[in-house]
Amino acid sequence: MAFLSEPLERAIEQLARLPGIGRKTAQRFALHLMKTPDEDVVRLSEALLDLKRAIFYCPRCYNISHRDEECTVCTDSKRYTGQICVVPDFKELYAIEKTGEFKGRYHVLGGLISPLDNIGPGDLHIAQLLHRLRDGENITEIILAIPSNAEGEATSFYLNRLFKPLEINVSRLAYGIPMGAELEYIDDVTLTRALSARQKF
Amino acid sequence: MAFLSEPLERAIEQLARLPGIGRKTAQRFALHLMKTPDEDVVRLSEALLDLKRAIFYCPRCYNISHRDEECTVCTDSKRYTGQICVVPDFKELYAIEKTGEFKGRYHVLGGLISPLDNIGPGDLHIAQLLHRLRDGENITEIILAIPSNAEGEATSFYLNRLFKPLEINVSRLAYGIPMGAELEYIDDVTLTRALSARQKF
Repeated sequence: MAFLSEPLERAIEQLARLPGIGRKTAQRFALHLMKTPDEDVVRLSEALLDLKRAIFYCPRCYNISHRDEECTVCTDSKRYTGQICVVPDFKELYAIEKTGEFKGRYHVLGGLISPLDNIGPGDLHIAQLLHRLRDGENITEIILAIPSNAEGEATSFYLNRLFKPLEINVSRLAYGIPMGAELEYIDDVTLTRALSARQKF
Repeated sequence: MAFLSEPLERAIEQLARLPGIGRKTAQRFALHLMKTPDEDVVRLSEALLDLKRAIFYCPRCYNISHRDEECTVCTDSKRYTGQICVVPDFKELYAIEKTGEFKGRYHVLGGLISPLDNIGPGDLHIAQLLHRLRDGENITEIILAIPSNAEGEATSFYLNRLFKPLEINVSRLAYGIPMGAELEYIDDVTLTRALSARQKF
């Protein structure tokens, strides 16, 4: 709109690129920030830039790391090094870490195999994972924490085949009915899966 | 969480200060921005800073302006200068401007009278409005586009009393039932108002 000031328009446009944010919400953000004290806006803006310039990746597991060194999980001497949980991305690592239940290490693939998006095994940190398995880390168990969509299944299948000759215990997260959910609201695929993978009581 | 990298944590914290954004969404934003190309994050960050350093206010009506000069509404020679729409903030100006129905000028108060928040008439651009009314702008009509909450009513009442001796046509936006709304879902206050302010068919 012509009557909007250009800087405001530009801010709205940029904010509307955040995931799930439409023009209306972006506008609300921008108007809010206009009324926010200068130093707070500077702090936000700096924090965003730091996302690109102050975040590094762990050279071992590709988890997010602070400096160019191993991440807090890999350097934690209390963690069990024989177990690796393979996750597509940091998001999943974060979700699992929040449960506090997993005491092993991770390996972040950096995505999933997706021929449609032109992402093959070579674009993921799979070679590095094999390197860890073969090279002295003494890993005895792999847990695949990979979603059960098309890309996830393709990736799990591919990885499983690679792991075969290595004689390592490979498992995946259990799929089934979410805790506390009402049976009638569960989709058929999940229900079928829950039935066929029924666990001993 | 200790295992999160500090820059990521800081970005999440800052993003969570945006209105209506919780930690979870802030986290989604941050993870998204981490994967966004550098130059796009720089563009966003710059646009936010510009909200504070490149936005000025129109010295006549306090609308947002690009440089330190009159805004695009005030400088638009096609607009009717005899009519002023008084709005609390830029938000309302923007909403009205979007309808394309109003061809006059505006006056942005910069808030509403609110004793609880320690905001009195002296904190708003009311003196400047009176100055415009008295000083050669030849204004014949004032439209109050002010919400009908406690602060809005106090402000409207205060302004109306100031306008009295000036012999200017003062009106306010019509309140009533929103177009297309079902009567049964309208709150009582609106319905009462709509009844008492019934319009000729």
